[in-house]
Amino acid sequence: MTKVLIIGGGGMVGQKLAHRIAAGHLSLANPDVTLFDMGFPENSADASQITGNVTDMATLETLAAHRFDVVFHLAAIVSGEAETDFDKGWAINMMSMWHLLEALRNQHTLSDGMYTPRIVFTSSIAVFGGPYPDKIDDTFLCAPQTSYGAQKACCEVMLSDFSRKGFVDGISLRLPTICVRPGKPNLAASSFFSSIIREPLNGQEAILPVPDTVRHWHASPRSAARFLTHAATLDTSLLNGRRALNLPGLSCTVAEQIEALRQIAGQAAVDHIVPRKDPAIMRIVEGWPRNFEPDRARALGFEAESSFKEIIETYIADDLPR
Amino acid sequence: MTKVLIIGGGGMVGQKLAHRIAAGHLSLANPDVTLFDMGFPENSADASQITGNVTDMATLETLAAHRFDVVFHLAAIVSGEAETDFDKGWAINMMSMWHLLEALRNQHTLSDGMYTPRIVFTSSIAVFGGPYPDKIDDTFLCAPQTSYGAQKACCEVMLSDFSRKGFVDGISLRLPTICVRPGKPNLAASSFFSSIIREPLNGQEAILPVPDTVRHWHASPRSAARFLTHAATLDTSLLNGRRALNLPGLSCTVAEQIEALRQIAGQAAVDHIVPRKDPAIMRIVEGWPRNFEPDRARALGFEAESSFKEIIETYIADDLPR
Repeated sequence: MTKVLIIGGGGMVGQKLAHRIAAGHLSLANPDVTLFDMGFPENSADASQITGNVTDMATLETLAAHRFDVVFHLAAIVSGEAETDFDKGWAINMMSMWHLLEALRNQHTLSDGMYTPRIVFTSSIAVFGGPYPDKIDDTFLCAPQTSYGAQKACCEVMLSDFSRKGFVDGISLRLPTICVRPGKPNLAASSFFSSIIREPLNGQEAILPVPDTVRHWHASPRSAARFLTHAATLDTSLLNGRRALNLPGLSCTVAEQIEALRQIAGQAAVDHIVPRKDPAIMRIVEGWPRNFEPDRARALGFEAESSFKEIIETYIADDLPR
Repeated sequence: MTKVLIIGGGGMVGQKLAHRIAAGHLSLANPDVTLFDMGFPENSADASQITGNVTDMATLETLAAHRFDVVFHLAAIVSGEAETDFDKGWAINMMSMWHLLEALRNQHTLSDGMYTPRIVFTSSIAVFGGPYPDKIDDTFLCAPQTSYGAQKACCEVMLSDFSRKGFVDGISLRLPTICVRPGKPNLAASSFFSSIIREPLNGQEAILPVPDTVRHWHASPRSAARFLTHAATLDTSLLNGRRALNLPGLSCTVAEQIEALRQIAGQAAVDHIVPRKDPAIMRIVEGWPRNFEPDRARALGFEAESSFKEIIETYIADDLPR
């Protein structure tokens, strides 16, 4: 049996991951999954549930004592909220990682070094800051320009050092913006990238707060879950000590997103998109990466969509309410 | 009056900095310097002294309440010690920065945003990890391969985010290896770079633990102090949100170091160098940067030595016991 913990397992990506593991996509013997989160959706994936807060050290110590073989750490507040609530952002998005690593290291020590869990951490392309080259390669500096990005960057460095010392065996995945997210808009500044596809497909209005020339880097929720299961069994010696990976994604403009929507759902769907510039969101989005050359991740077998049409079709297949 | 705090003011670079400020090299009105450290040398620079430990939060809060205009944060344990004492390294080299920033932010808030101190933080080229290009440019990734480097990298990211939010006004200086250090060898793996010059000039034997083909990046203690005073009055808006700088230095091999020593002090001095390979040090040094192209720092007016001979002459002028 392989004991698997998904911290942030109540969230959208956590649920996708749990479903993917249940469907047999984790190449480890007999995975037994536990979800940890502050709450869970009604139709939660079939798995044990533990309710708690990652900012509580005692809770993390209790979790660590279960000695999970694989720990997916997905818990975070999103970029918009981390920007408005500075304390909460650093507490949840950074300090909880420190306390988790310390709790796992303690188990490693108690086990005389026998217990060294795989940690898969969802970082983000928000670790980068402009000005950018046309395509960001695998040796480009991190210079985060949001608190969210700064918190993710610190976690990457801590996870890498705990791994280098052999206490855990970690990997950080710099996820593209996940699109199309099912459900409702969230406080992420990137939320509109999903809204302008999802709402029209559901017959609802969506606000487009930026010019349609904005270029960005996307992958579907299905790809996100696939990245995570792939990372869980990757030979981390192949990372050569650089344990944070830029992942594959699809680079396209908002205009190209909208054109893909038109091809799939027609002009009537596109007519639900209402352009209404939001200077605050425009300023944040302006600082985001537009395109990558993720050679390392591709060589390690990570794969994403090759067209935005494919991303929309994935949403329709996996998440569009019937 | 300009209130100046030097955290780590009892150390070698802290003392150099205090002397430099006393000599009128800080372009701020009437600097009043306070040194903070666990202890001070007998011949300490003329300045107020506060004894304490940076790992004590209450101490940092008391310090912050003085509302220093400029805070130099130099306190750290060196790379060798951070590597052997994992807990101590993260506590002193990383968590103390977090608590310092939180204490200063609290003063910023209490002052209704009127108090925003300049913070000058001594980071290190240890934030980098190989493989390297021939010269590391200003957009090369951080991938630290020591705990010391990881701790410095986290501090840079935190300082940058607190600065972006306007709580403090910070800059991180990635110092070259400081050479020739006066005094005794320390626990830094880089200690031999100074020993092989300093000990022979003082008529003593020095061990060379690496091949003389090793290339590295150096600057003198005088340059280090000059970097710090320069950074204290720099217009940080010129940093464009990238608040960690690779500084100028001199790239040379150990053979070139030894040849410069021969030119200045003759073969008799060189004969004091005893090659004795140390695999542990060789492994650490192998992972270190060899050369940089620090265009940004140069454009911002930072300057270092242009020959290793000049570095030795600086040691003789400033620090060689008479």
